[in-house]
Amino acid sequence: MAPPRLYLDWNATSPMHPAARDAVMRAVDVFGNPNSVHGEGRAARAAIEGARRKIALLSGTDAANVVFTSGATEAANMVLTPDFSMGRTPLKLGRLYHSAVEHLAVREGGRFPKDKTTEIPVTEAGIVDLKALSALLDAHDKSTGLPMVAIMFVNNETGIVQPVEEAGRIVHAHGGLFVVDAVQAAGRLPIEIGRIGADFMIISSHKIGGPKGAGALIARGEALMPKALIRGGGQEKGHRSGTQNSLALIGFGAAAEAALQHLEERNAAIAVLRDRLEAGMRTAAPDVIIHGAGGPRVANTIFFTLPCMKAETGQIAFDLEGVALSAGSACSSGRVGESHVLTAMGRDPKLGALRISLGFSTTEEDVDRAIAAFAKIASRRKLAGEAA
Amino acid sequence: MAPPRLYLDWNATSPMHPAARDAVMRAVDVFGNPNSVHGEGRAARAAIEGARRKIALLSGTDAANVVFTSGATEAANMVLTPDFSMGRTPLKLGRLYHSAVEHLAVREGGRFPKDKTTEIPVTEAGIVDLKALSALLDAHDKSTGLPMVAIMFVNNETGIVQPVEEAGRIVHAHGGLFVVDAVQAAGRLPIEIGRIGADFMIISSHKIGGPKGAGALIARGEALMPKALIRGGGQEKGHRSGTQNSLALIGFGAAAEAALQHLEERNAAIAVLRDRLEAGMRTAAPDVIIHGAGGPRVANTIFFTLPCMKAETGQIAFDLEGVALSAGSACSSGRVGESHVLTAMGRDPKLGALRISLGFSTTEEDVDRAIAAFAKIASRRKLAGEAA
Repeated sequence: MAPPRLYLDWNATSPMHPAARDAVMRAVDVFGNPNSVHGEGRAARAAIEGARRKIALLSGTDAANVVFTSGATEAANMVLTPDFSMGRTPLKLGRLYHSAVEHLAVREGGRFPKDKTTEIPVTEAGIVDLKALSALLDAHDKSTGLPMVAIMFVNNETGIVQPVEEAGRIVHAHGGLFVVDAVQAAGRLPIEIGRIGADFMIISSHKIGGPKGAGALIARGEALMPKALIRGGGQEKGHRSGTQNSLALIGFGAAAEAALQHLEERNAAIAVLRDRLEAGMRTAAPDVIIHGAGGPRVANTIFFTLPCMKAETGQIAFDLEGVALSAGSACSSGRVGESHVLTAMGRDPKLGALRISLGFSTTEEDVDRAIAAFAKIASRRKLAGEAA
Repeated sequence: MAPPRLYLDWNATSPMHPAARDAVMRAVDVFGNPNSVHGEGRAARAAIEGARRKIALLSGTDAANVVFTSGATEAANMVLTPDFSMGRTPLKLGRLYHSAVEHLAVREGGRFPKDKTTEIPVTEAGIVDLKALSALLDAHDKSTGLPMVAIMFVNNETGIVQPVEEAGRIVHAHGGLFVVDAVQAAGRLPIEIGRIGADFMIISSHKIGGPKGAGALIARGEALMPKALIRGGGQEKGHRSGTQNSLALIGFGAAAEAALQHLEERNAAIAVLRDRLEAGMRTAAPDVIIHGAGGPRVANTIFFTLPCMKAETGQIAFDLEGVALSAGSACSSGRVGESHVLTAMGRDPKLGALRISLGFSTTEEDVDRAIAAFAKIASRRKLAGEAA
C-alpha cells in the first residue's frame, strides 16, 4: 500500500488556504464580466475590487497601486522593461541589474535585451553583494537611461532573506528603479512596499494559498508605470488588458487576508518545526549540508545536500516514501537540473540539493515523519556507498 | 421589488457551463504544481494534459499544438509579433494586416509597431473586403518580411461570420501567415483549424462556458512559433512561462468538451429563439435596425439600434428591467463608447447600438420576457420623443 502523502513543497505551490478555498467555492457563480456595466458585471467588479483592497493591505499600499496579472511571471515580464511612462512622458531605462540568484522569471530579463542585462553577484552565504551593486551602479552610464535593479526578497530555493532595504537605498541614491520579487516573502515576512523601499513589487496568489492564475504588480504610486505587456480592451486602467480572472482574484484576496493574520506567530511556529526537522536531519545524517543555515532565512525552507546522493534520486526516494519535496525550483517543467543558486554561492552545483518547504498546515507529526523518511533514505545511501 | 435577472450578454462572458462548473468544483483540491515531478505535481499535470486534449479536439488538431495562456487577449499579444522562429531559425514578419472590425486585443496590434499595422476595410454588410485584402497583399513589400493577416471568425458585436476560409487562401497565396480570432466562433461553429486554413487560432475559456483566466493559442503545427511574450520557467515548452492555471484549464477543457456536444442542434435551437426575439422586436418597434441581419451571422447575436435612443440609456433601461445586455464590447472597462464596428460598416456610430446575445441556457420564456422589456423601453422612447 502506498504511504499517505506528506506535502513539503510549499515553495513550489501551496495547497489552497481554507479561507481562499471557501471564497472560491462561494464565488464560483459570480460569472459577470467585471467590465460590463449591468448588474452581473457590477457584482463581479465589486468582488475583484474587494480582492484588490486585500492585496493592497498585504502590500502596505493603496488599491490604486495594485495591477492584477495572471501570475508573478507575467508581472515580472511586465515590469522588467526599458519602456516606462511618467504620466504621459516616456521614460527610458538603460539597463537591468538583477541578482545572480533571481528566479528565472526575472533572470530572463523581461523585455530587456540580453546585452542590457547585468548580474549582481552574491556572497558565499547567498546574499546579494551590496558593494558589487554599488560599484555596478557607480559605473552605470546614465546617458543610456536610468538603471533598474531587481532583487528578490526571499530566495525560492534557499529561503535566504536578501537585504532589500539596504539595496533599495543604494539603488535610489543612484537614481535607479528598484523592483522586488516578493513572491516567497509574502505570508512569511511583512512586505509593505514603503518599508522595503521598492518602486515595484511582485507577488503571486498560489504561493500564499490562493488559486493559481493570479498575481499582482504592486507599484509605489500611480505616476510611473511600465509600458503594458498585454494590450487590448484597456482593463486594469490600461496596464493589463484581458478580462480579469475574477474567481482566482477573489481567492487571491482571501489568501492575502489570511496571510496577514497572525503572520509573526504562524512563522514563529513554523520556525520551531523547521528547527526540529533540521535537528532530526543532522542526527540522522551528520554529514548533511544545510545551505544558508547560518544566515537570515525565512522560517519554512530547508535547502540541503546529502553527500553522495543525486538530487533526482533523492527526490524520487522521498516521493516513494510519500513525501513531496523538490530539487530546486519547480518552474522548469519538471526539469531536474543544476541549481544556479548554488553556483552563484560558489558551490559545486553537482552537489545536488533538495528543498523541503513547510506551510501553514504542517504539523509536528509531519516533521517527525519527514525525519523518519530522511533517516531511511540517508541510511540507504550509506549502504549503497558501502556496497559500491 | 427588483425584477428577476435575465442574462442576455453571453458574448461578454458566459455563465459557467454545468460540466465546467462540476469539473472546477471537483478539481479545487488538485493543487500540485504541474511542473513538479512528485505525485502531487503529476496529478496536476495529468489534469491539464487532459484539458489540453479536449481543447485540441475542439480545434481539430493535436494536443502538441495547443499553448495555454491566461486568456485570448494574451494569446493575441503573443501571436501578433514580427518575431517568429521556424525551429531555431528566426523568421521576420514585415507587417500586420487586420480587419477594421477586429476586437481591440487584435486592433492594438500586439507587438507590431503602429506604423507596421494596416487595417483591411469591411463592406457595408460588415464583411471583410477580400478584394481589398488581395490588393493590400499584392502591394506588400516582402523584403521587409512576410505579411501576417488577422481576421476574426465571428464578430463579437454583430455576430457576423467572416469568410475566413477564402481569406486564408488569399493569405497563403501571398506567402503570409493567417491568424484567426475564433473567440466568438467556438461553441457556435465548427472551428477545426485545418478546415479554416489558419496558421494560428485564438480561443477563450470564459466565452464558451469555462472559467475566466484561461485561453489558448492553437498552432497549425509545432515548427513555426512566435517569440514568447512571457518568459521565465519555460513552461508550455518555453512558449509561455508561468505556472499553469490548472483549475481554470480543467474547467476550460470541460467547457470545450461540452461545446462540441450537439453543436449543430444547440445552435439551431438558439437560432429559433433568436428569430422569435427578432420578430417580437420588429413587431414592437418596426423602426428597429438589426445590423447584419441579411448576411451570415452566428445564431446567438442581435446587434440592434433603436432610433432616438442612446446606447447608454438603453443599456441602463434594460438593466433596470432585469435584463443584462451590452452596448458593444464589454472589454473596455465599462466604457460605453462609439462602436468601431458600426463605423467600419459605414454607419453613423452615434446611432448607438445594443447587443443581445443568447446562450446554452436561454429559454423561450426568457425570449418572451426580453421582448416585453424591449417593447416597454421602445414605447417609452416614443413617448419621450413625442413629449420633446
